[in-house]
Amino acid sequence: MKNALGVEIPEYIEGIGELKPYQGVWKSIIEDEVPCTNISRTLKAKKAHTSKFCSSLEEAIKKCKPFDGMTVTCHHHLRGGDGVLMQTIEILDKMGIKDITLASSSLTSAHDGLVPYVESGMITKIFSSGIRGRLGEIISMGKLKHPAIIHSHGGRVRDFLTGRIKPDLSVLAASAADEEGNSTGSHGPSAFGSMGYADIDARYSKNVIIVTDNMVEYPCVPSTVRQHFVDYVVKVDSIGDASKIASGTTRITSSPMDLRIARIAATVIEHSGLFKNGMSFQVGAGGASLAVAKFLREDMKRKSIQGSFMIGGVTSYGVDMLEEGLFKAIFDVQSFDAAVSTSVLNNPKHVEITCDQYANPNNCGAMTNKLDVVVLGALEVDVDFNVNVITGSSGEIRGASGGHSDTASGANLSVIVCPSFRGRLPIIMDRVHTIVTPGESVDVVVTERGVCVNPAKPNLAAALKKAGLKVLDIKDLKKEVDSMTGIPAEKKLGDKIVALVEYRDGTIIDVIKNVTNLE
Amino acid sequence: MKNALGVEIPEYIEGIGELKPYQGVWKSIIEDEVPCTNISRTLKAKKAHTSKFCSSLEEAIKKCKPFDGMTVTCHHHLRGGDGVLMQTIEILDKMGIKDITLASSSLTSAHDGLVPYVESGMITKIFSSGIRGRLGEIISMGKLKHPAIIHSHGGRVRDFLTGRIKPDLSVLAASAADEEGNSTGSHGPSAFGSMGYADIDARYSKNVIIVTDNMVEYPCVPSTVRQHFVDYVVKVDSIGDASKIASGTTRITSSPMDLRIARIAATVIEHSGLFKNGMSFQVGAGGASLAVAKFLREDMKRKSIQGSFMIGGVTSYGVDMLEEGLFKAIFDVQSFDAAVSTSVLNNPKHVEITCDQYANPNNCGAMTNKLDVVVLGALEVDVDFNVNVITGSSGEIRGASGGHSDTASGANLSVIVCPSFRGRLPIIMDRVHTIVTPGESVDVVVTERGVCVNPAKPNLAAALKKAGLKVLDIKDLKKEVDSMTGIPAEKKLGDKIVALVEYRDGTIIDVIKNVTNLE
Repeated sequence: MKNALGVEIPEYIEGIGELKPYQGVWKSIIEDEVPCTNISRTLKAKKAHTSKFCSSLEEAIKKCKPFDGMTVTCHHHLRGGDGVLMQTIEILDKMGIKDITLASSSLTSAHDGLVPYVESGMITKIFSSGIRGRLGEIISMGKLKHPAIIHSHGGRVRDFLTGRIKPDLSVLAASAADEEGNSTGSHGPSAFGSMGYADIDARYSKNVIIVTDNMVEYPCVPSTVRQHFVDYVVKVDSIGDASKIASGTTRITSSPMDLRIARIAATVIEHSGLFKNGMSFQVGAGGASLAVAKFLREDMKRKSIQGSFMIGGVTSYGVDMLEEGLFKAIFDVQSFDAAVSTSVLNNPKHVEITCDQYANPNNCGAMTNKLDVVVLGALEVDVDFNVNVITGSSGEIRGASGGHSDTASGANLSVIVCPSFRGRLPIIMDRVHTIVTPGESVDVVVTERGVCVNPAKPNLAAALKKAGLKVLDIKDLKKEVDSMTGIPAEKKLGDKIVALVEYRDGTIIDVIKNVTNLE
Repeated sequence: MKNALGVEIPEYIEGIGELKPYQGVWKSIIEDEVPCTNISRTLKAKKAHTSKFCSSLEEAIKKCKPFDGMTVTCHHHLRGGDGVLMQTIEILDKMGIKDITLASSSLTSAHDGLVPYVESGMITKIFSSGIRGRLGEIISMGKLKHPAIIHSHGGRVRDFLTGRIKPDLSVLAASAADEEGNSTGSHGPSAFGSMGYADIDARYSKNVIIVTDNMVEYPCVPSTVRQHFVDYVVKVDSIGDASKIASGTTRITSSPMDLRIARIAATVIEHSGLFKNGMSFQVGAGGASLAVAKFLREDMKRKSIQGSFMIGGVTSYGVDMLEEGLFKAIFDVQSFDAAVSTSVLNNPKHVEITCDQYANPNNCGAMTNKLDVVVLGALEVDVDFNVNVITGSSGEIRGASGGHSDTASGANLSVIVCPSFRGRLPIIMDRVHTIVTPGESVDVVVTERGVCVNPAKPNLAAALKKAGLKVLDIKDLKKEVDSMTGIPAEKKLGDKIVALVEYRDGTIIDVIKNVTNLE
């Protein structure tokens, strides 16, 4: 069967089940109706005055009675510095547990160590919003038994609530925790800020272990994950390296190209009709995205605009804007910078939110649905405004869906910032290799050569032209770039589906085929 | 069938369903096992940038498509000052809705206005932790179609999670809210403090309306009930009278009798073996209970004891003790005093908790299970240490189960404080008229005539004797009191079951029969 974007989707995949084809951004959302069968939170009673403390992660995992075929989840708040997921998998492997479904909220450079476990068949299925590095490569080569499922941040919450992901064991890192499992990422030597992705695991997993390198006296205040969802608590030597959270992505770029793109994007926002008091805003942390915040900040000061709220991955830069009063509040599902944790801890206007509140498409008030402006990056964009943020130039999995499609769908203005080419590769394609965010939810693509506006928004195009911006037909821009870079050779791909890209509503928006030239 | 306390329990009641007999305090709690079938949270998607604001409560309720036989819930945080439940029922009645199940977290003197709706059959079933006043009287006379179900605070959460209560419409008062439904009781002209009972309604109800007299600009920060659980938001002229929350219960008693009992109770605590650094504590607000806090405070200062946490209904007195450093934190499910809201708002160590975290018997970390000492009142106590806090001297419903059985079951030391007689009525009975809290979970009964220790705790009795306290056999105390008061005439009761007392685990611990002498 074909989905609404013309992608051929299998009706059924062994080990995954039936698939539903993507229909359109809002097609599955029927207001005031329960959108799909959902499952219940796991209830687990304990008797009074029962100790949850375990002397090792191994002991805690044993108490959770691990079994072949189980689903294991973690959060990725420590990003490139995470040390808990690998400890967990190593222990399960030593116990001889096989056929694991891994459903971490994302996978980063800290998880290259998973490669042998995928190759050995100890891990046979993966759900994640992102897969990178060597792990992405071997999955792209077809070495994971079942296709990986790439979901958005909001889609992961929906996956839990609908039973697509049924977690048996969740091992959740905290930078401070007490003996009952009240835990936080906002303080402690390994503070990593918000713990927003962990909430759904804590509520829905059959067994929840809090792992910390910083046991504090009861009660741990403030705490994000609360004791009534926690089965066991473990003190370990290290939960990872919080200094690697940022991985250099949260400093403003010094690249003249990125700065130029960012300046144009800020001007797009200024003339979008949304640049006024009460505007809400989200920006990514990489490349040109964060630089947009820099120009927006200047523009807001110049025009005395006070925004309403910022959401999303939060950087120190966002915290500065909050403290300057440019926004009234920050809603933080994920801190992109360990330094942000001080603000999470101390500033009441810096509000930690769950991923459910952030982006779940199946609740009645996700923050992404309240968003005015989002600025997002892209690996590729196509003439239909579809965006790829997951596969690289050889078709290999090397990125993350993250909140890309969530925010694009909800924002009044979705701005994609990207250079028109990278190296000698054009970024604007006839068709992106992998669709993560459908063009229906993308309003503007900003490159260093000018601005392309989705034809569905003619008024916006007119306003931007009036403001003096160079507004191009995206097909013309493609021709212009192609004439400089040439048209790249076709990717060498096999026929095997190695990953499914799940749209936020649970339908399949694209499939990723195996790459043959990475061996 | 008979339950473990010998009470005859019907196997089935029309309109209620099958009943399970009470088996014992911890009999239904099997650790690490899912205690019962639970139901799922209601998912309701909304499209982006959809307004939730309604110009009247009537409009909001209409949007929720009310129907005959529906279940309506409210919280009772405004206690004697609540103005929202009556508005809701009046609107539903005007719309001609009949056969309503009302499941407010409690019912107070503010709800005498429900009487005509019960009499007319518009309300046919009631779940509540407390029923008082004229409403209690007419229910006691058998005027509610189906027996009322009295649950504990923790039991109410379990009732939601197991589907015993299936809310169709929840109308939740907030002292501040924004257009998306982020809402709080911690600030605003009608501030009432914690909003801890509302969480379960917000998460599990099919339709959630936030009602406030104080709309604030988006975002409302801090907020307790978050936007992703809220369907509609309404501004009304008044949510009630927050000054009536306290109803005079939160000032320290000046009654010499109560002060004497409280002084003895504090001495019991001091010599219980639990009076040391890290002790946790809960105390009620009425009569002698709060006065125990006064003496405990003095004792803690004298002996330089720092406790861990206080929980429960929180009074200004508790806040003072927090601020003096006598406890490290307060966990607040319900504020007994509007003045407490300032502390909820500003003191990070004053932590708002959901009733789920407070007392749900079916989660793995209720605060009541972590409690060292609780001091509770009683209407009657019997020689088996069973406690009645629901029916009065004529057998009429006039009190509240509240957190009584929840805290008694979890605390290491459960102290009941009560005078040995009131007026000419003895308080110690052969058998209390209605069992709310089973004697198995009560350790000590403190009266002005001395202290009775549950025979299951001989070491405690020995320690208290050694400390010089007058420790009496409860049967001897009963005789002593009876000899002064005489044995009261038997209550005039009918054969009709007018209410069921549900123990916190969902079993039936007692039934209440109709009263014939109140007409």
